[in-house]
Amino acid sequence: MSSTVYASMNQDKVVIVEVGPRDGLQNLSAFIETTHKISLIRMLAACGLREIQAGAFVSPRAIPQFRDMKTVTADIVTLPDVVFSALVPNLQGARDAVASGITKLIYFFSVSASHNMNNVRQTPEQSLQGLELIQKELTSDGLAECCVALATVFGCPFEGFPAVDKILHYIEKVVLLGVREITLCDTVGFGNPRQVEDIIYACQKNFPDVSFAVHFHNTRGLGMANALRAYEVGIRRFDAALGGLGGCPFAPGASGNVATEDIVFMFNSMGIQTGIVLEAILDVTRYLHELLPGVALSSAVYQAGLPKTSFL
Amino acid sequence: MSSTVYASMNQDKVVIVEVGPRDGLQNLSAFIETTHKISLIRMLAACGLREIQAGAFVSPRAIPQFRDMKTVTADIVTLPDVVFSALVPNLQGARDAVASGITKLIYFFSVSASHNMNNVRQTPEQSLQGLELIQKELTSDGLAECCVALATVFGCPFEGFPAVDKILHYIEKVVLLGVREITLCDTVGFGNPRQVEDIIYACQKNFPDVSFAVHFHNTRGLGMANALRAYEVGIRRFDAALGGLGGCPFAPGASGNVATEDIVFMFNSMGIQTGIVLEAILDVTRYLHELLPGVALSSAVYQAGLPKTSFL
Repeated sequence: MSSTVYASMNQDKVVIVEVGPRDGLQNLSAFIETTHKISLIRMLAACGLREIQAGAFVSPRAIPQFRDMKTVTADIVTLPDVVFSALVPNLQGARDAVASGITKLIYFFSVSASHNMNNVRQTPEQSLQGLELIQKELTSDGLAECCVALATVFGCPFEGFPAVDKILHYIEKVVLLGVREITLCDTVGFGNPRQVEDIIYACQKNFPDVSFAVHFHNTRGLGMANALRAYEVGIRRFDAALGGLGGCPFAPGASGNVATEDIVFMFNSMGIQTGIVLEAILDVTRYLHELLPGVALSSAVYQAGLPKTSFL
Repeated sequence: MSSTVYASMNQDKVVIVEVGPRDGLQNLSAFIETTHKISLIRMLAACGLREIQAGAFVSPRAIPQFRDMKTVTADIVTLPDVVFSALVPNLQGARDAVASGITKLIYFFSVSASHNMNNVRQTPEQSLQGLELIQKELTSDGLAECCVALATVFGCPFEGFPAVDKILHYIEKVVLLGVREITLCDTVGFGNPRQVEDIIYACQKNFPDVSFAVHFHNTRGLGMANALRAYEVGIRRFDAALGGLGGCPFAPGASGNVATEDIVFMFNSMGIQTGIVLEAILDVTRYLHELLPGVALSSAVYQAGLPKTSFL
């Protein structure tokens, strides 16, 4: 599904992008068996999720969890009606992703030079050069699309809050390279609703043709409030991770993503369509929990359960 | 401080009402020593909190935790610049509270007959008769004020979502008895931002002279989002509990309150004045945690810590 379709969606619909198989699993020390990863992703698709970030095409030395990406991808891309994306740090990763059947590449870099250096050992300018290579080689024929996840937009553990001008500067560079979908990421959970509103307004005003999405972590409890404010100012695409797993391995203090269960509960109960069956999602959470003995899942809805009565 | 003063406050100020010593402690099986309770409340006052719910004047058989209320109250009411309130279930509790120096009584009942019966073994109508007795005997001379906490406004574990008309009906009865401050409580965490907005709008429209406050639980992860939406529609008084402790002992599935640390973090970082020093609050959380070995505190800010840099 292209970003144009998303942008034309009804105001009372949102797209939840499941990033658990990527952002959720990347931090785990234990390797999740390939067959379990495939089962997890197939179960997520069966719940009504229409976009799933399947993993990352990175060096197995950097993140061993994703050493089986080609096998996982080869299986899941046969599923109908779901867009599978993958994180790619460079041209090689993008080539591998496309060769495996991924049609939506998520290229990521940070507006904070310090965090980008820690994360991908490059300056943001070098990252832009990498994006240019991908755009020239892989997306010009329309078979794959490259979107950008912009990290530390709402704060960086090394550099603090970025100036809005700096954020707009990198968005402009990315747009000049042909990107039309950008995810604004609160990598370490520094964001607050007022700042979220200010930054999103500035982005939308300056780049009205770009489809913006958000990626919030619940590190300091504001993930859902930030998502609500983002919705109020027009955002309709939200990253979330099953069980609230996640956190950047190269950003000190990063912790879990907004939990898929919780954000789906919020939107569903507000009458905003997600297309996702919450009861089915909770079955997948139970499966995930069985795969990860000893790992605490931070989803509040998973912990509390749905209201016992059938009012929702 | 009277509700009139709150209502005239600047739009960018909020009042955080600390209910931890009451809602937080009432569920604990271990008795907290009287001196520790007093230390806790004194520390909270020193952080800038200007209204603290000190406990409940209930039967020691019903909630043994509060058997030392008179001793606790006698000590803390000497503190300047803080309003100490206490929950009272009936005339006897209200008499004891006033005799101990409490000037703000919080009388509570539920709009759900089933929950009220479980909680205080009365119908809501019987609860209204109890309120009338308190108003006649204790508040007519102006020395004490009686406010009402209305439970299960956003959902009940037995009866589901109450009709708005039912909520307005009980508010009208309460207002006719002279009450001018009412806290709308999401006792079991069923609420969502759209419903919060609808109910608050209806309350404000029908009772423009009443000061409404909100009391949210984070049972299903929406506590902060609900608080944000309530703020957006004009609410300026928020209950919160240190460490996110809490939950009604007579409502199945109830769990923690919105954490004081998290809501103060949200408002402070949005530039909305709480008057509360967050670093000082976290010292009190550490003290609370030492008092409660083995009890998990759900405050995200306490778990994650403040951003390590000094940007906030």
